[in-house]
Amino acid sequence: MSQHLPTSPYRGTRDFLPAEMSVRTQVFHRLYEVIERYGFARYDGPILESAEIYEAKSGQEIADLQLYTLTDRGGRRLALRPEMTPSVARMIAANANKLQFPVRWYCHVNCHRYERPQRGRVREHWQINVDTFGSASPNVEIEIFELIHDMMAALGASRDMYVVRASDRVLLDGILTEMVGIPAEKVKTVAALIDRWDKYPHEQLLEEAAGIGVSPAQFDRLEEALSAGEKLLEAIPADVMQRSQLAKVLDGPGRELVTFDPFIVRGLAYYTSTVFEVFDRHPANSRALFGGGRYSDLVNLFSDAQIPGFGFGMGDVTLFDFLETHGILPEPLPEADVVVIPSQADLYEQAASVARILRGSGWRTSVPLEPRKLGKEISRADKTGARAIVIVGPSDWAAGNVVVRGMASGDQQTVTVDAVATAVAAQLDARAPEGQQ
Amino acid sequence: MSQHLPTSPYRGTRDFLPAEMSVRTQVFHRLYEVIERYGFARYDGPILESAEIYEAKSGQEIADLQLYTLTDRGGRRLALRPEMTPSVARMIAANANKLQFPVRWYCHVNCHRYERPQRGRVREHWQINVDTFGSASPNVEIEIFELIHDMMAALGASRDMYVVRASDRVLLDGILTEMVGIPAEKVKTVAALIDRWDKYPHEQLLEEAAGIGVSPAQFDRLEEALSAGEKLLEAIPADVMQRSQLAKVLDGPGRELVTFDPFIVRGLAYYTSTVFEVFDRHPANSRALFGGGRYSDLVNLFSDAQIPGFGFGMGDVTLFDFLETHGILPEPLPEADVVVIPSQADLYEQAASVARILRGSGWRTSVPLEPRKLGKEISRADKTGARAIVIVGPSDWAAGNVVVRGMASGDQQTVTVDAVATAVAAQLDARAPEGQQ
Repeated sequence: MSQHLPTSPYRGTRDFLPAEMSVRTQVFHRLYEVIERYGFARYDGPILESAEIYEAKSGQEIADLQLYTLTDRGGRRLALRPEMTPSVARMIAANANKLQFPVRWYCHVNCHRYERPQRGRVREHWQINVDTFGSASPNVEIEIFELIHDMMAALGASRDMYVVRASDRVLLDGILTEMVGIPAEKVKTVAALIDRWDKYPHEQLLEEAAGIGVSPAQFDRLEEALSAGEKLLEAIPADVMQRSQLAKVLDGPGRELVTFDPFIVRGLAYYTSTVFEVFDRHPANSRALFGGGRYSDLVNLFSDAQIPGFGFGMGDVTLFDFLETHGILPEPLPEADVVVIPSQADLYEQAASVARILRGSGWRTSVPLEPRKLGKEISRADKTGARAIVIVGPSDWAAGNVVVRGMASGDQQTVTVDAVATAVAAQLDARAPEGQQ
Repeated sequence: MSQHLPTSPYRGTRDFLPAEMSVRTQVFHRLYEVIERYGFARYDGPILESAEIYEAKSGQEIADLQLYTLTDRGGRRLALRPEMTPSVARMIAANANKLQFPVRWYCHVNCHRYERPQRGRVREHWQINVDTFGSASPNVEIEIFELIHDMMAALGASRDMYVVRASDRVLLDGILTEMVGIPAEKVKTVAALIDRWDKYPHEQLLEEAAGIGVSPAQFDRLEEALSAGEKLLEAIPADVMQRSQLAKVLDGPGRELVTFDPFIVRGLAYYTSTVFEVFDRHPANSRALFGGGRYSDLVNLFSDAQIPGFGFGMGDVTLFDFLETHGILPEPLPEADVVVIPSQADLYEQAASVARILRGSGWRTSVPLEPRKLGKEISRADKTGARAIVIVGPSDWAAGNVVVRGMASGDQQTVTVDAVATAVAAQLDARAPEGQQ
């Protein structure tokens, strides 16, 4: 065949070869472990969902432009999920009768959005979603903020590398109506402008604000309020603070965990109260890593039950950029800890039996499949990162022995087959085998 | 809102709630661990692929009827992958220059086929794919057959619960042409008939065979050959055996691992030599669990490089049916090992600080988010499977103490906060925390 099909993955999607996958797996497993230590239980769901669940709540941009849709042979309009929150709200609604609320759930799923591929944006990305359903307590926020700091710490990130910035839809409404004087019906439009604030030069902000009916005096008050940052909290009227979930969070241990920032708006489609974003503090990479918030009405798409949710989705692309920028990506693990090499082809079976012993002790052990020169196999084992080799040679084997060599130390000893696991463990510094799962 | 969206997942797809997900995760992790002990490294790839890669090789049934396709805004024809082998062949071709062959790769991915949902068939299923690329040695087959037995053993399956049946496309060709007398150009059609053999009554087989030009004498010889089972091997001409990969496998340690069965055909689209299927031996469930084979030409869809592959895909639906039928499904793990319960709402922060200590020791620990009566929280902790609780009460706390209770034993002791991790470990039988990841 001279005409070949292209070998590159579909634009905006990625192949993960073993070395990269090993790094990813290690990162995700640290995260799973921390999340599970808080009592969150993993769930999963289908990639295909009814298209209408996104049209209802994900916001116009996603539904109109970013959704991958298809129609099945039965005429059902389907979408590749662009995010997980509508799916999990659907599952919570479906199982509300048998769940003991509050529930803590997490997942790790891939999502599709039709985006123009660029730094930080792909068409298929993976994200970890963490949500608590069924409690309106500020303890929910506090717990998840604490979890986020533990997740970052588990990845090797210190508090100076990132910051969690939070606001509250209720605070924003209060600021806009009571402090800036924006009429209630214009609050959403002004909030959308704040969300785009740092994308525009000052001139254009003024112009856009005027275009939606914000007077110059209102604009000045708005600018002053936003630029006050955390100090703004002291100026917000007491009745607004009283209604705010975030104010309760900040009135306790939460103040150590997050920084109030009135610029945090996020998508307007379903957040109802607390919203937050985790920002990279690196000067070369200053941007939101991930974020989330409280959504009290999303389950109501599917049910009359009042089940508030609070959670976040952590996407892989920005996360790995962050880890790389800060130099805290883990190293890939080798595909095998030990390679058992027969010195000649007719000793393959014997080598395989030695490998069986080592696997029984938990070591990741491979045996060369093709007959090749011993020296070549040793150098291959070295290149793939094996930390020890076992050589099975004819006269050693006849005497019931094999040779064990540590690749780093170069130490080499002849041991009986019975003692091979112990000898290998000694060469691997008696470190317990590490799984890549 | 009175009009709600439906809460069920799209037909033929599944929601996995935490209890089921915990069972799945445990099963898959045992499998990952065994697979990695053989030196297989995990990879991953996109769900969306160019539709043409399936049209080229997956066989007409998949391409015409089972493929979920869509066209993106750039006019590219895409498909949700119905299987992983074409994708991995693409990746191998793309990276052939930098890989050190042979390579051992595995993945765990979801695949979509438009099927009529029924027992054992869904539209989105998960499968573990295990493949070795770049070696034509029969050691490849032997290693993977041995791996399969180890995977089954890791799931608690004994050898009497299943059997690995294997054949070889080369043997089948030889049997059909040299023993039955089928002309070469009809071999594929007859092979397809053998693949459907046990779906039809004898009458209809005769008719179908006649329809494709198999004479009654040929049909008798065919039936005789097929019904000979393993004994057929002795009757196959030596030159055919010489060319067969499976014959080499069976001529060594492979004979302990697989049973020759001339009925094993599998899809005709890309297998070139060894083919095999793992069968459930349970009388109520007798059918193929999963299978695979050797495909020497698939990488050639994408490249001129000659890179033979051998591997299998193990789907989740039949696997979990098998585990259930044989009563060897693991139990779901509880969402938390320990629950730290404040006896009154204003001790939440103190309870959270105790939880922090326990998490630091690796225990999955939750704290109730809402103020509720102590008795209710204790019974809830019991229901969710927690094995210990810690009670934080006002007078104990004032004295620097908490109460630790083992749920199974009912043992209860008052300990200092410093000693809480030790006391909990004692209640949990000092068992190391088990991850759900």
